[in-house]
Amino acid sequence: MAELQALTDDVVAGNHILYHHGVFDGYGHLSFRSPSNPNRFYMAAALSPGRVTADDIIELDLDGEITSADKNRETYSERFIHAEVYRARPEINSVLHSHSPTVIPFGVTTVPFKPVASSGSFLYPNPPIFDTSNVPEATSVLVNKPEIGKALVGVLGQNSVVLMRGHGNTVVGRDVRETVSRGIYTELNARLLLQALALGGPINYIKESEARGRRSIGQQARVPSHGIDRIWYMWTDEVADSIERAQSRRTAAAH
Amino acid sequence: MAELQALTDDVVAGNHILYHHGVFDGYGHLSFRSPSNPNRFYMAAALSPGRVTADDIIELDLDGEITSADKNRETYSERFIHAEVYRARPEINSVLHSHSPTVIPFGVTTVPFKPVASSGSFLYPNPPIFDTSNVPEATSVLVNKPEIGKALVGVLGQNSVVLMRGHGNTVVGRDVRETVSRGIYTELNARLLLQALALGGPINYIKESEARGRRSIGQQARVPSHGIDRIWYMWTDEVADSIERAQSRRTAAAH
Amino acid sequence: MAELQALTDDVVAGNHILYHHGVFDGYGHLSFRSPSNPNRFYMAAALSPGRVTADDIIELDLDGEITSADKNRETYSERFIHAEVYRARPEINSVLHSHSPTVIPFGVTTVPFKPVASSGSFLYPNPPIFDTSNVPEATSVLVNKPEIGKALVGVLGQNSVVLMRGHGNTVVGRDVRETVSRGIYTELNARLLLQALALGGPINYIKESEARGRRSIGQQARVPSHGIDRIWYMWTDEVADSIERAQSRRTAAAH
Amino acid sequence: MAELQALTDDVVAGNHILYHHGVFDGYGHLSFRSPSNPNRFYMAAALSPGRVTADDIIELDLDGEITSADKNRETYSERFIHAEVYRARPEINSVLHSHSPTVIPFGVTTVPFKPVASSGSFLYPNPPIFDTSNVPEATSVLVNKPEIGKALVGVLGQNSVVLMRGHGNTVVGRDVRETVSRGIYTELNARLLLQALALGGPINYIKESEARGRRSIGQQARVPSHGIDRIWYMWTDEVADSIERAQSRRTAAAH
Repeated sequence: MAELQALTDDVVAGNHILYHHGVFDGYGHLSFRSPSNPNRFYMAAALSPGRVTADDIIELDLDGEITSADKNRETYSERFIHAEVYRARPEINSVLHSHSPTVIPFGVTTVPFKPVASSGSFLYPNPPIFDTSNVPEATSVLVNKPEIGKALVGVLGQNSVVLMRGHGNTVVGRDVRETVSRGIYTELNARLLLQALALGGPINYIKESEARGRRSIGQQARVPSHGIDRIWYMWTDEVADSIERAQSRRTAAAH
Repeated sequence: MAELQALTDDVVAGNHILYHHGVFDGYGHLSFRSPSNPNRFYMAAALSPGRVTADDIIELDLDGEITSADKNRETYSERFIHAEVYRARPEINSVLHSHSPTVIPFGVTTVPFKPVASSGSFLYPNPPIFDTSNVPEATSVLVNKPEIGKALVGVLGQNSVVLMRGHGNTVVGRDVRETVSRGIYTELNARLLLQALALGGPINYIKESEARGRRSIGQQARVPSHGIDRIWYMWTDEVADSIERAQSRRTAAAH
Repeated sequence: MAELQALTDDVVAGNHILYHHGVFDGYGHLSFRSPSNPNRFYMAAALSPGRVTADDIIELDLDGEITSADKNRETYSERFIHAEVYRARPEINSVLHSHSPTVIPFGVTTVPFKPVASSGSFLYPNPPIFDTSNVPEATSVLVNKPEIGKALVGVLGQNSVVLMRGHGNTVVGRDVRETVSRGIYTELNARLLLQALALGGPINYIKESEARGRRSIGQQARVPSHGIDRIWYMWTDEVADSIERAQSRRTAAAH
Repeated sequence: MAELQALTDDVVAGNHILYHHGVFDGYGHLSFRSPSNPNRFYMAAALSPGRVTADDIIELDLDGEITSADKNRETYSERFIHAEVYRARPEINSVLHSHSPTVIPFGVTTVPFKPVASSGSFLYPNPPIFDTSNVPEATSVLVNKPEIGKALVGVLGQNSVVLMRGHGNTVVGRDVRETVSRGIYTELNARLLLQALALGGPINYIKESEARGRRSIGQQARVPSHGIDRIWYMWTDEVADSIERAQSRRTAAAH
């Protein structure tokens, strides 16, 4: 239970952090796999990220059905993105879907979205692009059916990120903190690459040997005070007020 | 009366939201059609959006004359934009005029302002450009006479957005929340499209079939916790302090 | 005295506003001509704009010497910009010098800095570029001698704005509020023009007839609740806390 | 001791300032040379810059070993950047390493990073680019061994800034305030140059004669109320709350 509580705190913080950093607009969502049942995952009910509190985190199964007590909460229509990643990728324990603004242009053009800084090594060599117009079950860009989720996961393959044409992107990681960090550094790489391309001429991208140590999920150990373990604490400090205000409003609205 | 009060709260919030999101500078304005009289509409007296309070919302007729008690309030010189949209488009119940910064460049160049993300579907296929230099009654870019408003509405046609050359844009919707949301996603689409064009090569725009479900005003039902119904609550949370400060200053100034 | 106090309040607010809007970095300055003596002007002692309080506004003559009681205050080394504008342009009562970030690139390239929106009409047809490397008395880009100020004013001519190569720009107006507003809309025009140029193709600039009404200093009457009279109040609301904090720190430091 | 305390306060403020200005992300670091022993330097333990307090500043020797009492603090893995600069450049007393976002693109392309404004004179003629892929001891872009630090310092030479390919940059100065200021104006120059290049045509760069007075470390005297002495006080005012919150959280966590 303590582990579940800690992960719940992380997913709440992650929602606020991703919104604070401009990766999420009002429609992003973030989840984690249940630590006790690999066929369950947790995410917020259908709320904008800046309003998410611990009381809004619900449990779902891989068909996208609510399995926790609060059966009448509204769910994100694109929860199938998360469910199908958890079904296909056992080493992945956290997923986010965002409309990361500077990433979207790379999904509608033909320039490969390669990493230009070491912080984007998890993107190596470059994320594939998923397009719902190739999916018979899709009637819009939304991944609102299991079949569309499966198609997305097929394009994602073993990558950490998949771009979604005319829509946004999906990012996966071993845990909430890694996924949040990757979401933020995916947006940053888009800004850096756009600027590097504007400068013109050949670009000296991150090489395979440089990316390797960071790319393979499950092969990189966490080091206390380094990497995500360092930056996570500053990021959570920055959204502490935002989380507290969301909780206060929720409590006030319930009375 | 409760409906009018709720709409007044929305238009106050909308002013602060649009300013907070950088769509409005100090000169934008937002209105809604009277729920009881289709020939009347409500908007703020001539104030900058960050100062608007519920006490500043006045009623006007379609000639731009004040019809509420506070006859001596100053009005926006471009209120005719709103009046003429309400006259010509019965299904429209809210209008905004802004100097949305990233949209202006698309009004002075020849690149079509097409949607590159699903969130901009209401722009499909692309908004027309209105130019006051084609309007005999105009002596500047301002839409400060009924005739110029009629000319603008003629160019707007059945679209949701019209660009205004060297000036800004006008956005319409079924209600305040939809209009505010469209204003914000019009500005976002401008940023996305500018970046996609900078990347070069062919752009994979939103297709007609993808845009259709969202384009036709009045054909898309509101779904609780989804779309604008979700994001509106976060946006209003964010400007709650701003609205409260504006009300406090107004009260203090009155004493 | 009441007039001087009101102008002092405006110049304090203007410093904070220009910093808040990113037109000033830590080195900008803003002045007004004495309402009682055309050969005197007021500006802050050598402080960064976010620290300026009413107690820091000093009086100088057109040679840049302090004429108020506080003779031992440090002065801006580029006060000659202000002094020489006041000497040469009797209709001008306020001057600012900034390193407005998006304007600087237009001072080091050959693209004319023309207005693309009506809010930039005062720039029409386009500001000249001043270059200290053409001024024998200059040993750097700084306008830190009367002769260099005279050279700058010679290039400024009857324009409202002059770009300064590798340095920034200078903006003049009839009073503090107009000068502040022009400083902000000069920076905005730079952003808009940079984006319009990136889109490519011919640009539909503001025409002479459209710019005329706003260009000629002294010919445009102030209208209550419109133009600068409207936006100034929102801008000052936004920096009220910043001014109060600056005053508090100053008072605390004096004890 | 008073001097050490003052420098400690500066390095704490500098961490918060660089983060506030977007030069540091969560992984930047800043140091100063011991005023009493040229073979020692001070920097924070391995924390993100927004969390640094005076209690986190530790002393290290030029081999990167902790020499103060708190031997079990975690250190930045790239502390060798600082150590090797202090070993090779006796006139340098402060160093920062950042992932300054707009600078990174200039490290992966071939456009020389020349100064376009006088505030970037310390960059003249243009910083060299260091690439770990030319360093046998490096297995990633990180400067996490003394040998890689020595290679970096070899490329830095007598410059004030060195770009680091696919990674960031390193900035040196005579004291903390100068280094912080240079870090901020390096990022600004990247933005200005990117925009100037986008405008096209020849760029009128800062000339050698204009840069000279500011370039040579140790030759430019500090002038009270001018240059860094002016802006530093505003910058520290702006982060006073951030520093206080970091200290409060640290104290709370210790209990």
